[in-house]
Amino acid sequence: MLIGIPKEIKVKEFRVGLTPNAIKTLVEAKHEVIVEKSAGEAIGYTDDLYKKNGAKIVSSSKEVYKAEMIIKVKEPQEKEFPLMHEGQMFFCYLHLASDPNQTKKLLEKKIVGVAFETITDDENRLPLLVPMSEVAGRLAIQVGATALQLNNGGKGILLGGIPGVRRGKVVIIGAGIVGVEAMKMALGLGAEVTILDRNLFRLREIDECMGLQ
Amino acid sequence: MLIGIPKEIKVKEFRVGLTPNAIKTLVEAKHEVIVEKSAGEAIGYTDDLYKKNGAKIVSSSKEVYKAEMIIKVKEPQEKEFPLMHEGQMFFCYLHLASDPNQTKKLLEKKIVGVAFETITDDENRLPLLVPMSEVAGRLAIQVGATALQLNNGGKGILLGGIPGVRRGKVVIIGAGIVGVEAMKMALGLGAEVTILDRNLFRLREIDECMGLQ
Amino acid sequence: MLIGIPKEIKVKEFRVGLTPNAIKTLVEAKHEVIVEKSAGEAIGYTDDLYKKNGAKIVSSSKEVYKAEMIIKVKEPQEKEFPLMHEGQMFFCYLHLASDPNQTKKLLEKKIVGVAFETITDDENRLPLLVPMSEVAGRLAIQVGATALQLNNGGKGILLGGIPGVRRGKVVIIGAGIVGVEAMKMALGLGAEVTILDRNLFRLREIDECMGLQ
Amino acid sequence: MLIGIPKEIKVKEFRVGLTPNAIKTLVEAKHEVIVEKSAGEAIGYTDDLYKKNGAKIVSSSKEVYKAEMIIKVKEPQEKEFPLMHEGQMFFCYLHLASDPNQTKKLLEKKIVGVAFETITDDENRLPLLVPMSEVAGRLAIQVGATALQLNNGGKGILLGGIPGVRRGKVVIIGAGIVGVEAMKMALGLGAEVTILDRNLFRLREIDECMGLQ
Amino acid sequence: MLIGIPKEIKVKEFRVGLTPNAIKTLVEAKHEVIVEKSAGEAIGYTDDLYKKNGAKIVSSSKEVYKAEMIIKVKEPQEKEFPLMHEGQMFFCYLHLASDPNQTKKLLEKKIVGVAFETITDDENRLPLLVPMSEVAGRLAIQVGATALQLNNGGKGILLGGIPGVRRGKVVIIGAGIVGVEAMKMALGLGAEVTILDRNLFRLREIDECMGLQ
Amino acid sequence: MLIGIPKEIKVKEFRVGLTPNAIKTLVEAKHEVIVEKSAGEAIGYTDDLYKKNGAKIVSSSKEVYKAEMIIKVKEPQEKEFPLMHEGQMFFCYLHLASDPNQTKKLLEKKIVGVAFETITDDENRLPLLVPMSEVAGRLAIQVGATALQLNNGGKGILLGGIPGVRRGKVVIIGAGIVGVEAMKMALGLGAEVTILDRNLFRLREIDECMGLQ
Repeated sequence: MLIGIPKEIKVKEFRVGLTPNAIKTLVEAKHEVIVEKSAGEAIGYTDDLYKKNGAKIVSSSKEVYKAEMIIKVKEPQEKEFPLMHEGQMFFCYLHLASDPNQTKKLLEKKIVGVAFETITDDENRLPLLVPMSEVAGRLAIQVGATALQLNNGGKGILLGGIPGVRRGKVVIIGAGIVGVEAMKMALGLGAEVTILDRNLFRLREIDECMGLQ
Repeated sequence: MLIGIPKEIKVKEFRVGLTPNAIKTLVEAKHEVIVEKSAGEAIGYTDDLYKKNGAKIVSSSKEVYKAEMIIKVKEPQEKEFPLMHEGQMFFCYLHLASDPNQTKKLLEKKIVGVAFETITDDENRLPLLVPMSEVAGRLAIQVGATALQLNNGGKGILLGGIPGVRRGKVVIIGAGIVGVEAMKMALGLGAEVTILDRNLFRLREIDECMGLQ
Repeated sequence: MLIGIPKEIKVKEFRVGLTPNAIKTLVEAKHEVIVEKSAGEAIGYTDDLYKKNGAKIVSSSKEVYKAEMIIKVKEPQEKEFPLMHEGQMFFCYLHLASDPNQTKKLLEKKIVGVAFETITDDENRLPLLVPMSEVAGRLAIQVGATALQLNNGGKGILLGGIPGVRRGKVVIIGAGIVGVEAMKMALGLGAEVTILDRNLFRLREIDECMGLQ
Repeated sequence: MLIGIPKEIKVKEFRVGLTPNAIKTLVEAKHEVIVEKSAGEAIGYTDDLYKKNGAKIVSSSKEVYKAEMIIKVKEPQEKEFPLMHEGQMFFCYLHLASDPNQTKKLLEKKIVGVAFETITDDENRLPLLVPMSEVAGRLAIQVGATALQLNNGGKGILLGGIPGVRRGKVVIIGAGIVGVEAMKMALGLGAEVTILDRNLFRLREIDECMGLQ
Repeated sequence: MLIGIPKEIKVKEFRVGLTPNAIKTLVEAKHEVIVEKSAGEAIGYTDDLYKKNGAKIVSSSKEVYKAEMIIKVKEPQEKEFPLMHEGQMFFCYLHLASDPNQTKKLLEKKIVGVAFETITDDENRLPLLVPMSEVAGRLAIQVGATALQLNNGGKGILLGGIPGVRRGKVVIIGAGIVGVEAMKMALGLGAEVTILDRNLFRLREIDECMGLQ
Repeated sequence: MLIGIPKEIKVKEFRVGLTPNAIKTLVEAKHEVIVEKSAGEAIGYTDDLYKKNGAKIVSSSKEVYKAEMIIKVKEPQEKEFPLMHEGQMFFCYLHLASDPNQTKKLLEKKIVGVAFETITDDENRLPLLVPMSEVAGRLAIQVGATALQLNNGGKGILLGGIPGVRRGKVVIIGAGIVGVEAMKMALGLGAEVTILDRNLFRLREIDECMGLQ
């Protein structure tokens, strides 16, 4: 099968659909993989590295989108819709629930979309969503703490305070993966943390393992 | 010297001025020690044990108070004043600062009083006061937690809460030994603790060792 | 349906069958709810609050017990048996296993009893029993520590000891919720804790999360 | 004495020389205090608040600098030199060691400067420098972690990693207050931390209290 | 049934197939149990103790192996093969996967072998394998730390280092029971630990409970 | 001055008196340094490395001992006495208190000995003794844990136990550096630790920092 890896065009999106290593596996399985020029450059995957692993580098997204299957990170952007063709397969994060416009377009084009965020393993866990949530939760506090700095327009609160100055308060709504990872970072920086969830059994797990409610 | 160990008469005071072991040391140093009947009984020091260590058991406080030196726990009580005689030495906790009546009586009787709470070692630490403070601080939270129970007339607050129920808040004024020991117990029971002190360097020590401010 | 919330009559029972909030939900679902005068007063739920949420306040338990369904906390007490009528539904903690007398009475009166302690969710957990166990376990240590005080007739042991004085020993039989919550509090107060259970896999969980065996 | 509190003019400096509360103390001690308009506004101390505490608000720095004593935060800036007059007293952070130009100016004007960073208490500690160092150390990691984000031009490293992704490495040079506070935050965010210092006894203290070397 | 407990002959194997207590249970269930002389001596189970619990002591392995069922610890050793008879039942650790020679012998003799390491409970856990893995994992670090000592021919590395000297690095491959127990001990001795596993969800569990990745 | 660094001859002593780096400093200060062949080999300091740093390698201890000053690790051994000459200076650990024979020999030869273990810094700390104590304390538990293994002739006790098996007990006499480092390792391996010391203030420090008494 011809598989295409386009360069992401969403603002501040540095990731790429497949690592060079993964491409090797596909090529060994007799698939053909085309990668858009400098698709992985921002995170250190050079075109050369992709070539060495068996990919063909193409210079335009137009060419990549000729592939039967597209593997990318973010949902197709406005500019990418015209490049998609009927029956094409898409592997990427889609988040359709909050995006009726995209949903309509995918239906119109009769795209076969497999949303990363919905893939489950045999214990009903979400192996492609969980790591994103872990990063999101951990970054959230870092971003929030930075936003609280006076020189960034914040209220001048240091999450952990210092001896003699009250610590900041962090309230986390939802004790899923994002929430718990955020909680750990907030505690790590010394904040006073309250975590809320309707699921008491989840709060018990957190309490048992992390001594917090 | 004739040394007397009276039975404590203050309400709920179970302690005794000297342990049997300590009496042995005094007797070996050629002092004579008289102990009031059942002075140490409440905490397991029987009259027999005192006798085996060289003390003489006497049956009334009147007899004990004939001694040149009295070693006891609490300051002399109202009923004990008439038993004291001029020039007698007292080793006990005195806490005169808040007790002008006692102070006046001690001066009238020309008592030589050595207050346990003021004895310092060569690094200016208070070896006889510190353990009392440690007990006081640790007990304080236990007593306070009990007082918060609804069946004891309290507000029905459990210091550590449970998953889904807010923990109780404990504010501790003063980060000396009493305060810090209380803080440890309150944290141990899961309360949300704030400790206040005018001495920022003390708060820093606590923060460095115990991760709290 | 007519639902009655009696005032609890068991000694030292301050709880009440339903919160004002819960009553609102029932009333909105077209049920009629009658609450006995001052049923929730001890824990801050005034009759007024119940009225605002749609309950009707009645002045005697006799009236409340006319309801088709009774929602309360503790099992029916001796004095309450005569008030119950055939076919009446009961939602409360029953603990029948250890109470043949109550069981007999419920059968005689053909009561439809739903014991809170047996209600399970879809993962076979016990959402109405667990929080009671959490409170029980945490309180147990608080109560036990208090009972160890000399002024309460105990042996004069402070669970955490102080530097130079051995800590108290706590042995916990059963590593269920009560046991583990008690364990946490005992550790928090500085006691030396041993927890026993026939289920080694439960001990492993505790060891993995809490570093204790 | 006439005391002046100018508005800070250094870029991103939001602090102010005295809090309204401190001014009250000075006024009660019969000093006259003039505060430059909106000097404390950025951190919530309004002109009104200063007035209520006894300060007089003046509208230009020129007026403030007529005072006998100036209390401010940062060392005098280039633009402030012309406003200073011979013999004037300055209380502020000076950091002269790295700033020969300022030193020369202060000497020329015969300024009596008291550098906050050099004030010691009777145990040779630095009560005015330490809190700044605490803030600096804690902020350092927050700022550093933010700088590592790919969207900020960093290497895309998350200090704590996530399960399956290596944590970031932080090397801290110097185990003084800045270093140790930075260390705590870096550990709190899950980084792998190495702290270096020529003073082994300081490393031992850290190791004893914080389990790190 | 006649059950035999031989003395283990594998080098450094001190364990024994059944405790005296377990024998009592079998005897009460009308089985006959013969134990080889001094089978449990190395770990404090004397022949007398076995006798008191109902076992018969026999002086040679030859006699023990006449039993219908053999309960022992390690797989049959070379020297034991000739003692085994057709149809005999064996309860012991077998680890056949890596031992074709043993497998062949067991098949030839038509032995009914039940391998301890494969026994599962009703939640598919391995109650007889897990404790062995726990011991193995904890001992591994102790043995490894000892092997690193210079006087044992090692590289002279102390796992925890000392202040000023880098800690040792431990890499653990596999986050199963052996690996996690080893990890805990290595962390406990102060080593810098990296644990690897292909199962990210297991790494997440460890991270959640133990703050490590 | 001519300084000699002999190869240590005490059994299992792998250390050497000076590192190559230290020799460089001495040579730059115009001293002459001779090092015995392969003196540092066991810990990775080759003769070549010493030569590159300015030392002269000599092939016999006889030659080294001609130096005016000897820098080594352990006290002079029986075989080394004849090599020493009157007035020679010795820098090494001496531990004379328990070694009257050595003391006599040093006096006879009129040796000027500086014992490493007695060198203090300006705060009366022992910079040369402390690191040895740290290593000793940490190793002690490692060695002790190994000695408890059944295959080493021990009682078959695993310090940390496993879930369901009691942990081992460790009693440490003396809360100095050796004791506290041993304590940390024993706790790290999961043992039940009691530490004893006559100095209650030291126990308080440990309790404050490490939550143990």
